[in-house]
Amino acid sequence: MSRLPTVTDVAEAAGVSRQTVSNVLNAPDRVREATRERVSKAIEELGYRPHASARRLRTQTSSTIGIRLDPVSDGISGSILDRFLHALTEQADAVGLRVLLYTALGADDEIRQLARLVDGADVDAFVLTSTYYGDPRTDWLIERGQRFVTFGRPWGINDMTDPAHAWVDVDGRDGVRQATEHLLEAGHRRIGYIGWPSGSGTGDDRHGGWAETLRTASVPDLDGLVERAEDSVSAGTAAMRRLMSRNPGLEAVVTASDGLALGALVAASGTTPVVGFDNTPVAASLGFSSVDQQLTAVASGVLELLTDSTNGPRHRLIAPELVVREETLR
Amino acid sequence: MSRLPTVTDVAEAAGVSRQTVSNVLNAPDRVREATRERVSKAIEELGYRPHASARRLRTQTSSTIGIRLDPVSDGISGSILDRFLHALTEQADAVGLRVLLYTALGADDEIRQLARLVDGADVDAFVLTSTYYGDPRTDWLIERGQRFVTFGRPWGINDMTDPAHAWVDVDGRDGVRQATEHLLEAGHRRIGYIGWPSGSGTGDDRHGGWAETLRTASVPDLDGLVERAEDSVSAGTAAMRRLMSRNPGLEAVVTASDGLALGALVAASGTTPVVGFDNTPVAASLGFSSVDQQLTAVASGVLELLTDSTNGPRHRLIAPELVVREETLR
Repeated sequence: MSRLPTVTDVAEAAGVSRQTVSNVLNAPDRVREATRERVSKAIEELGYRPHASARRLRTQTSSTIGIRLDPVSDGISGSILDRFLHALTEQADAVGLRVLLYTALGADDEIRQLARLVDGADVDAFVLTSTYYGDPRTDWLIERGQRFVTFGRPWGINDMTDPAHAWVDVDGRDGVRQATEHLLEAGHRRIGYIGWPSGSGTGDDRHGGWAETLRTASVPDLDGLVERAEDSVSAGTAAMRRLMSRNPGLEAVVTASDGLALGALVAASGTTPVVGFDNTPVAASLGFSSVDQQLTAVASGVLELLTDSTNGPRHRLIAPELVVREETLR
Repeated sequence: MSRLPTVTDVAEAAGVSRQTVSNVLNAPDRVREATRERVSKAIEELGYRPHASARRLRTQTSSTIGIRLDPVSDGISGSILDRFLHALTEQADAVGLRVLLYTALGADDEIRQLARLVDGADVDAFVLTSTYYGDPRTDWLIERGQRFVTFGRPWGINDMTDPAHAWVDVDGRDGVRQATEHLLEAGHRRIGYIGWPSGSGTGDDRHGGWAETLRTASVPDLDGLVERAEDSVSAGTAAMRRLMSRNPGLEAVVTASDGLALGALVAASGTTPVVGFDNTPVAASLGFSSVDQQLTAVASGVLELLTDSTNGPRHRLIAPELVVREETLR
């Protein structure tokens, strides 16, 4: 890798000691005119610059945020964390913070990476994504008093407002509620739900938004209106076919992701209204409604919490926004 | 941001001078047993660590690669650079290199950012993406002898093999040729092309792959088989409608992107074979053929060129791979 000119290089070029170079930089009065000129000339010719690492060493901060980049996902909604990364990087840059990427093969490997970055003082703070029940990464960071914010709630922890765990999350339950109410207002009653297998905090939360809305509207036997599938278009297509064959009167469907939504639209040949989640380019391109996670607001919330030294609330629950489009394939 | 314990903190805690702390770390023999133990205890209690910035200061390298993260694109193929970033970060991590992100509002702003990162010695080398005709960024880097590799050819430069400009690119012309030959072998002759407006190196290169393949197959009056559109699904739909109305005998279509391909499939209600470019999750999900850019190979090529100190070739042209699927909407 490229090597930068050092004080030693300048000293050799000017035929003086390192101390003299340092004097020219920090106490020029101590240096004779002629020597000062020779050193300045060498500094200019070599393009020597006081080193950023030296500045960091003085300030003891790197002004750098570490964030894990997960292996690329092939799902339609897989790009959601990339979109968050774009928003975070743009806003961090605006406040003079850098974003350093790292990778990890799992929670344990990620903890090793966190330790490496903490030991190296390469990073001042971490932004963790994809939190889950009993996430060991946050415990590790809290024990070490390391500054971090998670995009995602500390699922499974009793006290979600624990100031030790700063987090920003999107109110997925509210998003799915908005989607379901939108379909109710359009006059539909038999509104199905295609979500992920139970056990994920995010997934159960979204399912809850659909269930409580239809219960409030006293729609009967909801169990028959639910299908669980992995997050893929083909799984969404299969789930939609099961849902349709079991419910001849199915009027519309709410899904946990744009991938499942696209699959459902394909299965119904675009005749049944389907609402997705994540408002991906696919939803925008094909013109079906989807819940937007408001990632710009998420990113600013994360940065606020990272830089906030007051004793204000240590978490933000962002309200998503349903983007309404004609819910049929054009 | 979090502040790390310094040598001064250790000295105060142990009630010794900074020099003594430094002696304990670097020349323990010079320090009396009792003092050494007191200092070691303070180091342990405070969790003091030799600073990464100090190491960097010694080695004069940051082992960090800078790459620009473009504002998030809403296009179907917009995620292609994100997918490259995933591949680059994973492979860089494997060889001990970090990836630092920066943003820019345009070429001039990006040059200011490059200067900032060079001056700060925050980055050893740059990876530039989205090169174009007369790209001023690469001239700037070459003039300053800054190490960089572009993902994308130095379009418009006579000598593409100029060792001063290391680059990795995907042979888009070959990819579109593969797509066109695949449709010819399937028995189609009137194969249309939907690409971007003329003037982009990448776009003209891809169009060339279609044109020369059909010319070799002596397919007549190609001009009527070409449509130009911006890279969006709706523009692809409009372009496909124009193409179909002008060519009643249209048998298949090759496109410059999966976004245009999806638009064409919607316009033709999935009855006409369409081949896309970029092999995005959308192509995989909906099951149409698309040209894969082999981004893992691109990333390793970039890293090879960044770390290569031999006098080997300074560029790599990666052969893409057509992923064949049933070219109709399921």
